[in-house]
Amino acid sequence: MKTLRIPEATVMRMSVYSKYLNKLDQDGIITVSSGEIADGVGVSSAQVRKDLAYFGEFGTRGVGYNVKDLLRYTLKILGLDREWNLILAGADNLGYALCTNTEFVSRGFKIVGVFDDDLSRIGRRISNMIVQPLEEMAQVVKEHNVKIGILTVPDNSSQQVADLMINSGIIAILNFSAIPLNPTESVDVRNVDMSALLEILTFNLGFKAAQNL
Amino acid sequence: MKTLRIPEATVMRMSVYSKYLNKLDQDGIITVSSGEIADGVGVSSAQVRKDLAYFGEFGTRGVGYNVKDLLRYTLKILGLDREWNLILAGADNLGYALCTNTEFVSRGFKIVGVFDDDLSRIGRRISNMIVQPLEEMAQVVKEHNVKIGILTVPDNSSQQVADLMINSGIIAILNFSAIPLNPTESVDVRNVDMSALLEILTFNLGFKAAQNL
Repeated sequence: MKTLRIPEATVMRMSVYSKYLNKLDQDGIITVSSGEIADGVGVSSAQVRKDLAYFGEFGTRGVGYNVKDLLRYTLKILGLDREWNLILAGADNLGYALCTNTEFVSRGFKIVGVFDDDLSRIGRRISNMIVQPLEEMAQVVKEHNVKIGILTVPDNSSQQVADLMINSGIIAILNFSAIPLNPTESVDVRNVDMSALLEILTFNLGFKAAQNL
Repeated sequence: MKTLRIPEATVMRMSVYSKYLNKLDQDGIITVSSGEIADGVGVSSAQVRKDLAYFGEFGTRGVGYNVKDLLRYTLKILGLDREWNLILAGADNLGYALCTNTEFVSRGFKIVGVFDDDLSRIGRRISNMIVQPLEEMAQVVKEHNVKIGILTVPDNSSQQVADLMINSGIIAILNFSAIPLNPTESVDVRNVDMSALLEILTFNLGFKAAQNL
């Protein structure tokens, strides 16, 4: 996969801005300034302007941004001007938590299949779905034109289940296992490393301690 | 909180390198090149060298890095040359998944208290802990000298429970709610936005589609 020139951190903030704009829109707010967006999501207004500038010219000087227009535009940028069907492999607690994540639904993500190879989990109900054996994955991916898979299986089977996803037609994987999967030319992988998130905190705490703060 | 000059992405990769070095060490490997680390974790060797260069000079030209030394040094950088006690608020499925995350343990994180305000959850056993009411938080934080809290409560109570954490003595929060918490001078916050992670994938898919790939 080609490296995009737009920083990943910018894309993640676009998602945060987009959700904030959605909230403003639901509250009936018509226009918003970069400063108000910044305050609402906890970044600097210069950051908001810099992030938006990657995607073109928005807003009117002295007036700000039209909330509905900017919301629509952020959704389009993020590829959310359509719905996306997802599958999830690994029906453990994390899998269950993700299947019942209401924000996914509000952003247009629909989990259409949950898979596991554990006989004690297959057949169990999660939300409005029944956990299916891994062998059913390819059929569900094809039937629902699924491009994105979420991987929450144990570390020792993550590469194997990722390969099964890819062979089934999945081209983008959100991987929650502790084993980083390597992206390929044709498959985009995002590894979510839970302990690395904690380690940013301990890194910063160590830095503060070193400064005797 | 001051902005560190070291990019957050570098810190997260240091965590990934560190875990890979740990695996090499356990496999009895003595030395490793930046190219081998790069292959093992799926980044370029230039990236590995650039990331390590933030922290000083390592390795010997033509010989590579001593695995044990570099592992020890990455742990020290990440603040993991000690153990960290954590608390978690929100004993739902995600909270349960995090409490039973074995990688946290292997990296020196120990969850010493789990809290919820839901009467149906209080008293329930998770791992070797009993879910306690939020009112007990301050006492546990004090008793175990806890600095880091994980927040997995519903969105509508996340700010309130974060404030309770901060008032209890927590100075670093990993927030899994969809409401971004604002960092302050004295409290470091890392917001983990699950849907934003998916939206990086849809952003890239849209980019690919636009290129007619």
